[in-house]
Amino acid sequence: MNVHDLTRELHVKNDSKIVLLVADGLGGLPRTSEGMTELETARRPNLDRLARRGIQGASIPVAPGISPGSGPGHLGLFGYDPIRYRIGRGALEATGIGFPLGPGDVAIRCNFCTLDEAGRIVDRRAGRITTEESGPLAARLRDVRIPGIEIFVEPVKEHRFVVVFRGPGLGDAVRDTDPQATGVRPLEPVGEDDAGRRTAEVARAFLAQARDLLRSEPKANFHTMRGFASKPDLPSFEDVYGLRAAAIAVYPMYKGLAHLVGMRIVGSARTLDEQIDTLAQSWNDHDFFFLHFKYTDSTGEDGDFDAKVRRIEELDGAMPRILRLAPTVLIVTGDHSTPSFLKGHSWHPVPTLLVSDCCRPDRLMEFHEATCIRGGLGHFEAKHLMTLALANAGRLGKFGA
Amino acid sequence: MNVHDLTRELHVKNDSKIVLLVADGLGGLPRTSEGMTELETARRPNLDRLARRGIQGASIPVAPGISPGSGPGHLGLFGYDPIRYRIGRGALEATGIGFPLGPGDVAIRCNFCTLDEAGRIVDRRAGRITTEESGPLAARLRDVRIPGIEIFVEPVKEHRFVVVFRGPGLGDAVRDTDPQATGVRPLEPVGEDDAGRRTAEVARAFLAQARDLLRSEPKANFHTMRGFASKPDLPSFEDVYGLRAAAIAVYPMYKGLAHLVGMRIVGSARTLDEQIDTLAQSWNDHDFFFLHFKYTDSTGEDGDFDAKVRRIEELDGAMPRILRLAPTVLIVTGDHSTPSFLKGHSWHPVPTLLVSDCCRPDRLMEFHEATCIRGGLGHFEAKHLMTLALANAGRLGKFGA
Repeated sequence: MNVHDLTRELHVKNDSKIVLLVADGLGGLPRTSEGMTELETARRPNLDRLARRGIQGASIPVAPGISPGSGPGHLGLFGYDPIRYRIGRGALEATGIGFPLGPGDVAIRCNFCTLDEAGRIVDRRAGRITTEESGPLAARLRDVRIPGIEIFVEPVKEHRFVVVFRGPGLGDAVRDTDPQATGVRPLEPVGEDDAGRRTAEVARAFLAQARDLLRSEPKANFHTMRGFASKPDLPSFEDVYGLRAAAIAVYPMYKGLAHLVGMRIVGSARTLDEQIDTLAQSWNDHDFFFLHFKYTDSTGEDGDFDAKVRRIEELDGAMPRILRLAPTVLIVTGDHSTPSFLKGHSWHPVPTLLVSDCCRPDRLMEFHEATCIRGGLGHFEAKHLMTLALANAGRLGKFGA
Repeated sequence: MNVHDLTRELHVKNDSKIVLLVADGLGGLPRTSEGMTELETARRPNLDRLARRGIQGASIPVAPGISPGSGPGHLGLFGYDPIRYRIGRGALEATGIGFPLGPGDVAIRCNFCTLDEAGRIVDRRAGRITTEESGPLAARLRDVRIPGIEIFVEPVKEHRFVVVFRGPGLGDAVRDTDPQATGVRPLEPVGEDDAGRRTAEVARAFLAQARDLLRSEPKANFHTMRGFASKPDLPSFEDVYGLRAAAIAVYPMYKGLAHLVGMRIVGSARTLDEQIDTLAQSWNDHDFFFLHFKYTDSTGEDGDFDAKVRRIEELDGAMPRILRLAPTVLIVTGDHSTPSFLKGHSWHPVPTLLVSDCCRPDRLMEFHEATCIRGGLGHFEAKHLMTLALANAGRLGKFGA
């Protein structure tokens, strides 16, 4: 079942305001089997107060046991089935640096590499070239000219950069040129359908000119191309929910993901406090607010339990300012768990709290991993959260008579 | 997954008796975030006693956040995927007045309206004509004659009535004639495929004669047609479950819904007590009993918290008489929630209790919203309830060897 088949048909408009606060990687793990998680350890006076008038549950980002990346993690929260809607690697990479992909664009993740005189790959990452060295080299590739094709080259980090081709008739069914091995030549780009063959032809022309432009470089004298990907065809929030949605994020990746579903990127906040300023400023012109807090994830990725606890406490401290705006529906969740114990994204369900006047409180007195599994929302797939948000906001009509 | 693909293959017959007691709109909400729901407030000595030997859960009628009408709400409880099986408006309207639709019939929801001299709609509801005035006018339309077509005209309420066409080759792909606006002429019926075009032709003939029959009326001098719908193609209880099913309801809508899945409508009870008399009388000739209690919904719709509490207590008081029949499986649930706080159907999961000798009791001591979310049935989609009923009745064989 695609929930959008229902929401598209049933949504109605009103004056309600929905805030979706995503604490990236919120869920955690205890350090020992008797211990507490980061969220359980944190002082949470405000979140616990909300728990008493809210309903909580355990959100399964994609499916049990599946650890999502940021793309599927957020698509799920936004109500898009993350198994049905995939964001190709090139498109995610472009999205991650805030590049506004258009329909028909093809984005490609590129890696600088080192070739020997015979043209065989010696180093697939160009000797771990630094960002300072690689940036100007990527910029140099902007000199490539291909008739009828607009070309964008954007540095990313270290050996990575993004190329976007824009022009008529391009498609993303093109095989990677990275042979995933050294001692062999890069592969030729090969298209798998007509539009892919057209893109492969453009890619071959690009690679030929890049070879010349990089020839004199000691380390980064060529590059591979992988993850050819068009902009994913995601229906917009306006279309499927009738919502004017605002995204308030610090990092480009999350702005990019919000952009893909048609949210408006508002403000240029650098801190949580500034994000809440932006929330207040954009309050009247929007119905839905995606507020992204990064640091519960990055501290988890670092394996820094205590730092993650402090970041959760920072978030807890920000709740009163959000509540002062009196949202009709407030949701606190994460796109996945990032336990510092695992130093990475995990599959564990994410503690999720929904507060509204008609949420049917479940009488839990705290909000964390141990309470959420007993909550009134049960264990649910993240893709159902938006429907619950709309229902609690009075924005869904009755299904059938 | 369609559960019927399994039940059709696996069901076996025995002497068990299953009672499905549907307290319409059973689930509720507290009036404040610290308060209790209607079911939590009610005195429930009998239901709580059952809770101790039963297993409970939270039934999601359609999908999280979706508030169903009576049609999808009951289809779910009957084990029919309410998203896959839709009942068109005309068919539901006919069902709601107890009209037994046959295969190939096309039912149409009609509204009396007022036209000016130029044929433009002045009032889409014929000046809110009363049921007393409109009934005889609908009856007058029974004089319409169309060769080869059997025609039924049934009054509903106020400006509403139902027309059913019966004849070979008719289909329901016909657009509404109601322009949803005043100051314009009604639309012509337009068919969207061959069978729809045949129906549209019949509809045009009907409308022409109706125009003549109603011409002299001051208010209801014409009518619109909308929601052309055939009988939904639902496999029967006998087919998918091997059950001889009896429906014991007071209101026509629920008899109609039961009829659509092939249940036998038994008795003509007007009260819950009479319904239980009918249950006892039909006990030996049936395997399954759908007992519908309306008033938990209607009091919720009225926003009358205390009246809903009293209706739940009335239901609780009826349990001993039902138990005296010693059903193999007894289920108490609702087709959706109708919180008096919201004065309407809602999306909230429905407290559901199943009692049998092999149900694996979950040791909960009470039965209401706060207990059901911790019950042994978990949070489940309503469409799975029938399979659980069959299993607890020993009516499902092993799947695979």
